[in-house]
Amino acid sequence: MQHDVVDAQISPEGQLEILAKSEVAKLLDTSQGGLYNVFRNCSLAVLNCGNVIDDGKELLERYRSFDISIIQRERGIKLDVKGAPARAFVDGKMIKGIHEHLFAVLRDVIYMSDEISGSSKFNLTTTEGVTDFVFHMLRNADVLHPMTNPNLVVCWGGHSISRDEYDYSKDVGYELGLRSLDICTGCGPGAMKGPMKGAAISHSKQRVTTGRYIGLSEPGIIAAESPNPIVNSLVILPDIEKRLEAFVRLGHGIVVFPGGAGTAEEILYILGILLHPQNAGVPFPLIFTGPAGSAEYFKQIDHFIGATLGEEAQQRYKIIVDDPVQVAREMQAGIKQVREFRKEKSDAYYFNWLLRIDHEFQMPFVPTHDNMRNLHLHKNQPNHKLAANLRRAFSGIVAGNVKEQGIRAIEQHGCFEIHGDKDIMNPMDGLLASFVAQHRMKLPGTQYHPCYRIVS
Amino acid sequence: MQHDVVDAQISPEGQLEILAKSEVAKLLDTSQGGLYNVFRNCSLAVLNCGNVIDDGKELLERYRSFDISIIQRERGIKLDVKGAPARAFVDGKMIKGIHEHLFAVLRDVIYMSDEISGSSKFNLTTTEGVTDFVFHMLRNADVLHPMTNPNLVVCWGGHSISRDEYDYSKDVGYELGLRSLDICTGCGPGAMKGPMKGAAISHSKQRVTTGRYIGLSEPGIIAAESPNPIVNSLVILPDIEKRLEAFVRLGHGIVVFPGGAGTAEEILYILGILLHPQNAGVPFPLIFTGPAGSAEYFKQIDHFIGATLGEEAQQRYKIIVDDPVQVAREMQAGIKQVREFRKEKSDAYYFNWLLRIDHEFQMPFVPTHDNMRNLHLHKNQPNHKLAANLRRAFSGIVAGNVKEQGIRAIEQHGCFEIHGDKDIMNPMDGLLASFVAQHRMKLPGTQYHPCYRIVS
Amino acid sequence: MQHDVVDAQISPEGQLEILAKSEVAKLLDTSQGGLYNVFRNCSLAVLNCGNVIDDGKELLERYRSFDISIIQRERGIKLDVKGAPARAFVDGKMIKGIHEHLFAVLRDVIYMSDEISGSSKFNLTTTEGVTDFVFHMLRNADVLHPMTNPNLVVCWGGHSISRDEYDYSKDVGYELGLRSLDICTGCGPGAMKGPMKGAAISHSKQRVTTGRYIGLSEPGIIAAESPNPIVNSLVILPDIEKRLEAFVRLGHGIVVFPGGAGTAEEILYILGILLHPQNAGVPFPLIFTGPAGSAEYFKQIDHFIGATLGEEAQQRYKIIVDDPVQVAREMQAGIKQVREFRKEKSDAYYFNWLLRIDHEFQMPFVPTHDNMRNLHLHKNQPNHKLAANLRRAFSGIVAGNVKEQGIRAIEQHGCFEIHGDKDIMNPMDGLLASFVAQHRMKLPGTQYHPCYRIVS
Amino acid sequence: MQHDVVDAQISPEGQLEILAKSEVAKLLDTSQGGLYNVFRNCSLAVLNCGNVIDDGKELLERYRSFDISIIQRERGIKLDVKGAPARAFVDGKMIKGIHEHLFAVLRDVIYMSDEISGSSKFNLTTTEGVTDFVFHMLRNADVLHPMTNPNLVVCWGGHSISRDEYDYSKDVGYELGLRSLDICTGCGPGAMKGPMKGAAISHSKQRVTTGRYIGLSEPGIIAAESPNPIVNSLVILPDIEKRLEAFVRLGHGIVVFPGGAGTAEEILYILGILLHPQNAGVPFPLIFTGPAGSAEYFKQIDHFIGATLGEEAQQRYKIIVDDPVQVAREMQAGIKQVREFRKEKSDAYYFNWLLRIDHEFQMPFVPTHDNMRNLHLHKNQPNHKLAANLRRAFSGIVAGNVKEQGIRAIEQHGCFEIHGDKDIMNPMDGLLASFVAQHRMKLPGTQYHPCYRIVS
Repeated sequence: MQHDVVDAQISPEGQLEILAKSEVAKLLDTSQGGLYNVFRNCSLAVLNCGNVIDDGKELLERYRSFDISIIQRERGIKLDVKGAPARAFVDGKMIKGIHEHLFAVLRDVIYMSDEISGSSKFNLTTTEGVTDFVFHMLRNADVLHPMTNPNLVVCWGGHSISRDEYDYSKDVGYELGLRSLDICTGCGPGAMKGPMKGAAISHSKQRVTTGRYIGLSEPGIIAAESPNPIVNSLVILPDIEKRLEAFVRLGHGIVVFPGGAGTAEEILYILGILLHPQNAGVPFPLIFTGPAGSAEYFKQIDHFIGATLGEEAQQRYKIIVDDPVQVAREMQAGIKQVREFRKEKSDAYYFNWLLRIDHEFQMPFVPTHDNMRNLHLHKNQPNHKLAANLRRAFSGIVAGNVKEQGIRAIEQHGCFEIHGDKDIMNPMDGLLASFVAQHRMKLPGTQYHPCYRIVS
Repeated sequence: MQHDVVDAQISPEGQLEILAKSEVAKLLDTSQGGLYNVFRNCSLAVLNCGNVIDDGKELLERYRSFDISIIQRERGIKLDVKGAPARAFVDGKMIKGIHEHLFAVLRDVIYMSDEISGSSKFNLTTTEGVTDFVFHMLRNADVLHPMTNPNLVVCWGGHSISRDEYDYSKDVGYELGLRSLDICTGCGPGAMKGPMKGAAISHSKQRVTTGRYIGLSEPGIIAAESPNPIVNSLVILPDIEKRLEAFVRLGHGIVVFPGGAGTAEEILYILGILLHPQNAGVPFPLIFTGPAGSAEYFKQIDHFIGATLGEEAQQRYKIIVDDPVQVAREMQAGIKQVREFRKEKSDAYYFNWLLRIDHEFQMPFVPTHDNMRNLHLHKNQPNHKLAANLRRAFSGIVAGNVKEQGIRAIEQHGCFEIHGDKDIMNPMDGLLASFVAQHRMKLPGTQYHPCYRIVS
Repeated sequence: MQHDVVDAQISPEGQLEILAKSEVAKLLDTSQGGLYNVFRNCSLAVLNCGNVIDDGKELLERYRSFDISIIQRERGIKLDVKGAPARAFVDGKMIKGIHEHLFAVLRDVIYMSDEISGSSKFNLTTTEGVTDFVFHMLRNADVLHPMTNPNLVVCWGGHSISRDEYDYSKDVGYELGLRSLDICTGCGPGAMKGPMKGAAISHSKQRVTTGRYIGLSEPGIIAAESPNPIVNSLVILPDIEKRLEAFVRLGHGIVVFPGGAGTAEEILYILGILLHPQNAGVPFPLIFTGPAGSAEYFKQIDHFIGATLGEEAQQRYKIIVDDPVQVAREMQAGIKQVREFRKEKSDAYYFNWLLRIDHEFQMPFVPTHDNMRNLHLHKNQPNHKLAANLRRAFSGIVAGNVKEQGIRAIEQHGCFEIHGDKDIMNPMDGLLASFVAQHRMKLPGTQYHPCYRIVS
Repeated sequence: MQHDVVDAQISPEGQLEILAKSEVAKLLDTSQGGLYNVFRNCSLAVLNCGNVIDDGKELLERYRSFDISIIQRERGIKLDVKGAPARAFVDGKMIKGIHEHLFAVLRDVIYMSDEISGSSKFNLTTTEGVTDFVFHMLRNADVLHPMTNPNLVVCWGGHSISRDEYDYSKDVGYELGLRSLDICTGCGPGAMKGPMKGAAISHSKQRVTTGRYIGLSEPGIIAAESPNPIVNSLVILPDIEKRLEAFVRLGHGIVVFPGGAGTAEEILYILGILLHPQNAGVPFPLIFTGPAGSAEYFKQIDHFIGATLGEEAQQRYKIIVDDPVQVAREMQAGIKQVREFRKEKSDAYYFNWLLRIDHEFQMPFVPTHDNMRNLHLHKNQPNHKLAANLRRAFSGIVAGNVKEQGIRAIEQHGCFEIHGDKDIMNPMDGLLASFVAQHRMKLPGTQYHPCYRIVS
């Protein structure tokens, strides 16, 4: 199959994109520490928007000849792209939203270059250091807005969901937007796109011209979850852990739609944090919701959480079935509590400093076969530690499903083996099996080959 | 059935709404010439948005207790509404778009007050006078934008269309919006809402923050075609003829989607004008389009036009089936020609002064039973005159279907009788029968009782 | 002496200047009712800005060949000017502020065209009608801003003042601007320019980017008092009486600097209104101020008011000598009272509806030799009537000094004769003599030939 | 003498001022490396605006009790100031311009904190490293604007100049502003304030609402040259050399007004750079100008340059006496050449990358008595090296005149001794003597005690 490509020179119309000579040099140095590769691959992912494809490896192979470089011009820099996916263009002109995303990639890759090359000025071995770095990346991306009330709802959920679930996520987004709430997602298709589309329509009815559609991604996942051009603030964090931290420090509440392993990872991440004793008093609205047909799905999730993390964890979320208005109202009420809490504690509205995130949740987990095999999935540990390890298990499965490196590893070494207590492994096996049965692991139309084996 | 209502005081946040004492007095004087009634009824229609209902009479009866008045406050005026439809509000707060529409009604009713009371300073008995008045209404409503290139696409089509047709109209709107074209419609549901929704999404992707969604209405039809809140420029013209003139002088091209009698009226109106000898050289892109399933519909229309107005008329439009991208490209190319023509003739981009509109098309047609019976539907007249009379016939049927006064007239005196040449009456009968069969006359779910009888 | 002139075509960059064909026709019809002449002469006055000259007749003679016409272009209209004063241009490009003023003239001349041609839709024989008309002119010029707090200070005073007085007026404007107050003047040189310059600097320090510098003029005086380009809202009212009404209904307080006959006219106008029994409770901050060297001047004014209108009048103003900070603070405190009063009475902040203006003060006074001779300058009338007549006397003297028609009348028939009671005529004579002695009647460097003769 | 002080809490209304916890900690840590001291002293300087005082040491002593700290609030940070100079406030509210300057200080002190603490990530021992750092500071301060044409005129000249010279600098600024040129100065009084005031007025006449008044300062000089609140982009560079580099890389041309030792330093700096062989072809408009009364001053300067650096140097500037219009036109023409040159070379418009600045001009010169004594003021070196050393000599004199540390050094060790060739020392002595005679060394009213002794 042939894929149409386009060559073009892109200038940052109206945006502040001023690079130092030293920065241009770094970006174009293909020898050094992979900066050019990260830049190129994220750019390609952004340009691939609209082509539904959730296989990072396939994307890179499809557009092998894609190339991007920087030209210095008297009014600012230009990007020179060669062999770009044609769908990013309308009659030869790049769609503005994608255009902006390209420059967001540029901005973030430059910002994280010291981290990529290992010379970070942040101390990433401490909890405070990681949080400080996440804060700096978000500030540099201009998504921390002072002087505004909390109104940012993070929407999580699968990239591969049914039409019904997708329409439902649009309805929820519409009702959130009617109440002037903004949306933040992982910025791929499915449950990450629906709420933004819904909110775009209701914001337009409410004349909210400053509506924010924030997408948070990372170099490993972006190829599989190309940002929708509605996203008007795209931020590329360096890895999945920093991306998750960005979600919970930036958002004022979370709505979870149905999804697969990635969604389970996200749920375990936020529950693991909320279960930390120091976060006992921190309000954090967390709602699981879907259309009537998805009721069963949330029963399974709820059951899995009950079986592994217990009732304490179950009390931190609400499940609302088939009622977008109620979701929006609960979220609005929950965010009001967040506001009061932060006001009382003088914590920033735009960044959740007070939330304690254990270093376990911050340390990048590299899903090698060894690391997967050695996860501590046992009950004799505090709940939030168990949540951390369960999170890692699902994280590895996501990598094996859709990320370039994960797919290559599975191709080479076969399935991941996951060990643990029976009373954890059994519910986990059941949950994963139901994801497979419901086509939540991969886009419909593709056959799913499991990348893991439960060994209890 | 009970309909929820709300009382509220509405202030014109940030908008320039400054009334003279004399204007407030006129608006609230219920005795005088019906100004209050027009204001009240149009306001009610605007507030009813979202409740699908296409019967002006029913709306007024449903909200009998609705009342609106003006309060002078030190920072400007406020509107005091009582018994307003609850759907205009989200958790007790009026949706901003509807809010703006209320003030648009206020603005236009005041502006046309001299015309309503019969003391117009415009000479409405001349072609120039009517055009001057339409110009002034549009300018007063701030929809004439100088210094911008032509980009306004008028979308016509039925309020009662199939889901497929609706989705198609959204796709066309999306492709138009991707090319930074703006949308103007009659502002009801169906084909008048779909293109705006589509364009809202693509404008958001293209970061077009100044996208215009213009709705043109008139007091007789607005109750049946409540403006969607996406409409960000609502103008109420005094009658159907001035509304039609506003469409063709303001828009730079027209897309016609499937529809019923109202759409036929609109098609005959624009063809009648384009057939005027003086308009022979005036470019005006006119595209009939629909999804694959509507191909038959346009065959019927095309056949009817061929049979009544002949090939000359057929040459002024293109029929494009099931190809939104092609529609958008053709429209863009057509508008480019419009631009070049106006540039050459030094005609304004924002108002089509050069188009000749015969006074026949400007004079309000009151669809009494007598007037309907006496229409000249014969072939021995110039084509554009015949088109004018055919237009009137369909206009009367629209009134009998959905307008308060028309419905009351039919209730009292029975069906309209329409006479004419057999070779006009037969195709007309066939076309109307197909509209009925395809449920294009009334919203689905309601039984259609024809308001006319063809007598040839 | 040769005066440099320039030809140019001016387009209304970014401003809404859209004319109907009928309006262009009216403006260019030199035959009809003088509309073209008003347009041309006001335009010339605006273009003459920066050339200090206070003789309307001389201006017209200096630029006899000046011509202005309107060209319709596809993106809007253009103005074609020929023989314009070169100082309106910088290196061949018109100064933007002047550019805007030209289009303000255009806007207002069109708006008042029905009034000029005698077919007004306003009833100008009633108090309410005149006020309604003034309101409409101001609204049409977009100077009535709702949703903002009262902050507009009218500054009156002479066009011909000493350097010291001018610097002082700048200092007062600076202090007003530091407190975010806006300025409205008659828009000529001297005391009408100083406060705007001062406020422009302090607004810039306070980052007030929406500061308003409103200039109110009228066709008779504009030639002698060309608006300074700092004026960012210029309104041309049809005559001196409507201009004065605009000042007092628009402004929230008045500062009077030293001046000549025109300033005396203004003082008598506002005092006449404030003395009306119905205005007894209406707060209206009124401050007379000047540098130390002008203390004597205000003593004379105060004495004249005491001698003619009595102590009641003297209580409506404060005299503050040489203390700009105190002037600004008093004005701010006074405007706070205005705000509270209007809030309590639900009167608009942007237009003083409640102030009663007797029809005597609204009727245009034409200073013919007969009218001047027959003024009722006697004590046996209510105070506010006497103020009205005294106002007329000074108005006539201004006309004889600087307005084209007045100067021509004096040239033809000799000085105006002014009769009245001795105890009015003597103080008046004294006051006028002091104006002459202090060079307040005409610009320095020109010899003043009195245009009046006091006959008691 | 008692100085009025005020306590206040200041929030950054609408500005992006979001600090990481780590940054707040650094700023408030009084122990560590002097960050708090720099922050406090620069803040005090900013708040002292309007009190004419040019002695950094005196300022600090006058407001000993001044204190500033940062409070984290839920909507962003606040600054808590205690004992601030009362003149920064109007009726208790801080002037907005000063308010912005405070936050500019905060921003820059944080940005340069790594440099202050010696852990810079820039390599400041290389020419490229220093330039990269200057670039980053300017970009972080948001003064590098892409997509705009070159229009920034740097105005140099004394803080202590005559009324005539000050008025002339205003006139030049006015003419520059009329041509839509922006102004950049060292942001103190005198020749650094006049051009901004003039341009503010003409920008207002030209409706230039985006006019830039950039002030570049450094911690050592800011106390003596408090930024005028008109400055709407204030940047604090770490030292005098980086500040000078910022001037020449940011500005598109330079106008030099009369001044004292600081002005001489600036002239020698720019000439030294322009004399570098690699800059031979780089266009750089450089104009020395003053009113008629200052003609003699520029003759002396010109003579000194001729005597020391020769004719080659004299060819890089033009002297224009008493003709603001001509200055503006020459500057505009010169900037046009700059634009063409950069376009041709694809160099940025917003940063002069191509200009070669020798490392001699970048290395901070610390004016100790030893360093001053050991300057190489001999002719047997390339011209641009001699210029570098002459620059240092004048820089030391400025420090001894007005900077806190310099004043303290002179108090302790007596005058600097400056050695060199006779044919350099004699003209230098003459020039300095004339500065003293013309009161250009210190503000009038203060007696000047020379801080140097020429030893040839």
